[in-house]
Amino acid sequence: MTSSLTLPPLDPPAPRGSLLVVGVGASHGLGAAIARRFAAGGYPVAVAGRNAPKLEATAAELREAGASVVSVVGDASTADDARRFVAAAQELAPLAIAVHNAGSNRPAPFLEVSEQRFEGHWREHALGGFHVAQAVLPVLVTRGGGSLIFTGASGSLRGKAHYAPFAAAKAALRATAQSIAREFGPQGVHVGHVVVDGGIEGDRLLSLRPGLKDQQGPDGLLNIAAIAEAYWTLHHQHRSAWTLELDLRPWAETF
Amino acid sequence: MTSSLTLPPLDPPAPRGSLLVVGVGASHGLGAAIARRFAAGGYPVAVAGRNAPKLEATAAELREAGASVVSVVGDASTADDARRFVAAAQELAPLAIAVHNAGSNRPAPFLEVSEQRFEGHWREHALGGFHVAQAVLPVLVTRGGGSLIFTGASGSLRGKAHYAPFAAAKAALRATAQSIAREFGPQGVHVGHVVVDGGIEGDRLLSLRPGLKDQQGPDGLLNIAAIAEAYWTLHHQHRSAWTLELDLRPWAETF
Amino acid sequence: MTSSLTLPPLDPPAPRGSLLVVGVGASHGLGAAIARRFAAGGYPVAVAGRNAPKLEATAAELREAGASVVSVVGDASTADDARRFVAAAQELAPLAIAVHNAGSNRPAPFLEVSEQRFEGHWREHALGGFHVAQAVLPVLVTRGGGSLIFTGASGSLRGKAHYAPFAAAKAALRATAQSIAREFGPQGVHVGHVVVDGGIEGDRLLSLRPGLKDQQGPDGLLNIAAIAEAYWTLHHQHRSAWTLELDLRPWAETF
Amino acid sequence: MTSSLTLPPLDPPAPRGSLLVVGVGASHGLGAAIARRFAAGGYPVAVAGRNAPKLEATAAELREAGASVVSVVGDASTADDARRFVAAAQELAPLAIAVHNAGSNRPAPFLEVSEQRFEGHWREHALGGFHVAQAVLPVLVTRGGGSLIFTGASGSLRGKAHYAPFAAAKAALRATAQSIAREFGPQGVHVGHVVVDGGIEGDRLLSLRPGLKDQQGPDGLLNIAAIAEAYWTLHHQHRSAWTLELDLRPWAETF
Repeated sequence: MTSSLTLPPLDPPAPRGSLLVVGVGASHGLGAAIARRFAAGGYPVAVAGRNAPKLEATAAELREAGASVVSVVGDASTADDARRFVAAAQELAPLAIAVHNAGSNRPAPFLEVSEQRFEGHWREHALGGFHVAQAVLPVLVTRGGGSLIFTGASGSLRGKAHYAPFAAAKAALRATAQSIAREFGPQGVHVGHVVVDGGIEGDRLLSLRPGLKDQQGPDGLLNIAAIAEAYWTLHHQHRSAWTLELDLRPWAETF
Repeated sequence: MTSSLTLPPLDPPAPRGSLLVVGVGASHGLGAAIARRFAAGGYPVAVAGRNAPKLEATAAELREAGASVVSVVGDASTADDARRFVAAAQELAPLAIAVHNAGSNRPAPFLEVSEQRFEGHWREHALGGFHVAQAVLPVLVTRGGGSLIFTGASGSLRGKAHYAPFAAAKAALRATAQSIAREFGPQGVHVGHVVVDGGIEGDRLLSLRPGLKDQQGPDGLLNIAAIAEAYWTLHHQHRSAWTLELDLRPWAETF
Repeated sequence: MTSSLTLPPLDPPAPRGSLLVVGVGASHGLGAAIARRFAAGGYPVAVAGRNAPKLEATAAELREAGASVVSVVGDASTADDARRFVAAAQELAPLAIAVHNAGSNRPAPFLEVSEQRFEGHWREHALGGFHVAQAVLPVLVTRGGGSLIFTGASGSLRGKAHYAPFAAAKAALRATAQSIAREFGPQGVHVGHVVVDGGIEGDRLLSLRPGLKDQQGPDGLLNIAAIAEAYWTLHHQHRSAWTLELDLRPWAETF
Repeated sequence: MTSSLTLPPLDPPAPRGSLLVVGVGASHGLGAAIARRFAAGGYPVAVAGRNAPKLEATAAELREAGASVVSVVGDASTADDARRFVAAAQELAPLAIAVHNAGSNRPAPFLEVSEQRFEGHWREHALGGFHVAQAVLPVLVTRGGGSLIFTGASGSLRGKAHYAPFAAAKAALRATAQSIAREFGPQGVHVGHVVVDGGIEGDRLLSLRPGLKDQQGPDGLLNIAAIAEAYWTLHHQHRSAWTLELDLRPWAETF
C-alpha cells in the first residue's frame, strides 16, 4: 500500500495568517476546537466570546499548549465588538479566516416564545453573522482572499415544530451566507456554511443531557475535533473548487 | 363540452368568517387584491397597514364596491398592534383567515447595508409574521380551524448577491411558517407560504420602474388578482390535502 | 357576510378542450378522481391506463354519470402508446390539459431490489412522463397553450431508506418537469408538479393496508377528490401567476 | 506562525485498502485524478471505464508514476461488470472506497431528445450508480466500513431548460445516494454525493470548448486535482461527522 506518486501543489494556496473564531465558550466546545485545529496548523488565533471566564480559561489552555492566542470579550451582535474582534486578530497576523459560531437553541411551543426570545436568537445567529461579515469582508477583499465560515444546523434548512426562533435565525444566517458568497466569491473570499446536523459532543449538550452520549452509542454525537476538521478543510480548498455548503452528521444518525 | 356530472362537496368545508390582511397599502397592491378577493367571496375584511392615508383610501374603495371592511393602522412588528388587528377582524365576524403580506425589499451591495436596514427588513417580514402568528393562532385553535398565510418571495428560498437583508428576513419567515405548520396543522390551522417569484404588477413596482411592464410583455408581471386567487384557493382547500408551499411566477419568467 | 363586490375575469382564461389522464385504474383512485373533476367542469375526458378491465369500469361509471369519456388501454412508457393517448383525447376536443399520474411504489431493503424493479419504477414514472410530455407538448405549443401536470410524491424530494427505486424515479420525473417548465412556459404551456405527501385514500392503499384509514383519524389520508381539485386549480391559474410545484398533505400529517 | 500544539488522532480512522473508481477515461479527467489522489496517499487503485485504450493509457501513466493500479474495462450499467470491478479492486486489497463517476451530458431542446438519449443518460448515471452500489455495499458492510461516493452536478439539484435527460438521471442518482446513506450509514458505510457545479477543466470539456478556459479566467474551471481532494477528504472524515453532500464550484462562478 505505498506509492512513490506525489501530487504537485495547487496554486495559489489558501492565504495564511490569523484565524478569528467568534463564539468561543468552554474548552470542550466547537469554538475552542476550531481554534485548536488552526493553532495546531500554525495559525495564530483570536478567540471571541461573551462569557469572559470561560473564554479566558479556554484561551489559557490553548496558550499553554503552545498556541499563539488572544482573547476578546464582546458581543458580535454589535458592530463595534465585531470590529474589535477583527482588529484583535489582525494584530496577530493578517486575517486569513473568520468563523462565526455563535448562538444557542431553546425549543418551546410557539405560543410560549416571547418576542425577546425570538429576537434574541436572531441577534445571536443572524445579526451576529451580519456584523462579523461586515467587519471581516473589507479586510479579506483588500487582502485579496481568505475565508468566512458560518456554523449552521439542521434548523438552517427546515423549521421543525417548537423550533421557530432557532430555525428562523439559522435560515436567515444561511440566506446571508449565500448572498455574501455570490457577491464576494469573485473577489476572492471563500464563504462556507457548515450544516451541523446532529448533537454536538460538547460541554453544552453533555451538561444539558448527561445520558445522551451513552444513548447515542459510539461516535453517535458529533466529535468537536471532527467538526473542526471540516472548517480546516474548507479554508484550504483550492479556489477552483470551493464548497459553499456541506452537512455533517454522525454515521448512525437518523435523518 | 357539457356534463351532468356533479361532485359531492367535501366535508368539513373551510371555516367562514372574517379575513385579516396585514400589509395593505395602495388599492393597486397585493394586500388590497387579497382583501378584494375575499370580500367578493362574501368575507368581511379587516385591512391593516402602516400608511394611514393609503390604507383608508383602499378601504373606502372596497367599501364603496359593497364590501364589509374595517381598517386598522398600525405596525405588525409590535405585539400590541398585531393583537389590535386580530381584534378588529373579530369584531366583524369570527376570524377565519389571516394573511401576513408585509415588507419591502431594497437591494444593495452588502457593505452598504446598514444595521438599521438589515434589522428593519427582519422586523417587517419576520418579526411581523411572528407577532401576527402569535395573535392569530390562539383564536384559530380555539375556533378549531382557519388559515394563516404568509407572502414569500424568491428570496425566501435563495440569497442572491445584494439581497442579504431581504433574503435573510424572508428565509426567517419561511422557517417560522414551516415550524408553525408542523405544530398547528394537527390543531386544525392551515398554514400556507406563497412564494411570489417574479415582479408584482402593483403600484410599488410600477412606480419604481415605469417601463418594466412593457418590457416584460403581456402578463409578464404577476397580476395582483391572479396572486390573490391563490390565497383564496389555499384557504378553501380540504383539510385532507393542504398545501404548505406553492410558487407563483409569470409564464414567460426565467428561473 | 355578503357583498355585491364582483371581480372582473382575468384574460386570457385557461384553454378549454379535452383532458387526458394517463394512469387511471380503479374508480376510487386518483386518476379517476381527476377525470371526474374535469368532467364535472365540462371537459371531455380521455382516460388511459394499463389494466383494461379496471379502466373500462371506471370509464363506464363516469359515462353513466353523464361525462363524455373515452378510454385507451396502453403503456405510457412507450412512445407509440403515449401518442395514441393524445390522439384519443384530440378526437374529443382540442387537448387542453394532460396529466401524468402513473406508477407504483414498493419499498424494500436496497440489496433486495432487483434491476428489474429499479428499472421498472423508472419506466413507469420517469420514462412514462417523458413520453407523455413528448406527445403532449407539440400539440399544446401549436395550440398556444394548455397544461401538463405530473403527480409527484414525498419521494420526489427526498430518498428515504428502502425507497431508492421510487425516489430515484420520482426525482427524475421532477427534474424533467422543471426542465420542461423552463423551456415551454414561455411557449404558453403550464407545467405543474404536485407533491402528494401522505397516504392517498384510494383503492390501492386501502386494499393494501385496510386498517390505515381508522388509524390516521378523520381526513388523515388524502381524499382523492381533494387532490383532484388541485389539478383543476392549477390548470385554471392565470398565466401571469403559474405554480410549478405545490405540496399536498393531510392536516394532521407529521412531516 | 508556528505552534507546538498537536491534535490527538480520532479513532477509529477511515478504513484503508483499495480504491475503485468507476468512470475513468483520459488521464486528464476527473476519474484519473481521483485515482491519482488516492494512489499518492498509498491506496492501490482499480480503475474502470468503457474506453479500453484511454483507460489503459491512464492506468499505465499512474503505474509508471509508482502507483499500484489495475484496470478493468466494462460498463457499470450492467450488474456483472459492476461486480467484476469490485472483484478487481478486492484482489489488490480489501475495498475501502468506491467512486461512481460515470456519465456524459448532452443538452438539447426537449423535443429533439430521443428515447435512446433519455434512457442512455439514465443508464450511465443512475443505473450505473445502482449497480455499483449493489456490488460495493455487501463488501463494505461485511468489512464494517468504507465509503461510496457519487459524482453529482448542478443538474442533480435543478432541471434547467434543455437538460432534462441529464438532470433526470442525476436527480435519480442523488435520490439513490440519499436512500442508501440512510440505510447503510448505521452499518458503517459513508455515502457521499459531490455536486460539481461548474465546468471541469478536463479533457472532455477542453476538447469540446477550446476557448472556454481563457474565457473563464484563472481557476475559473474546476481543477481536477482540486475536485479529487474533496473525495479524499470525504473518505477520511471521522464517522462522528460525515458529510453526505457538498458542492464544489470555482470562486468566480455565477450561481
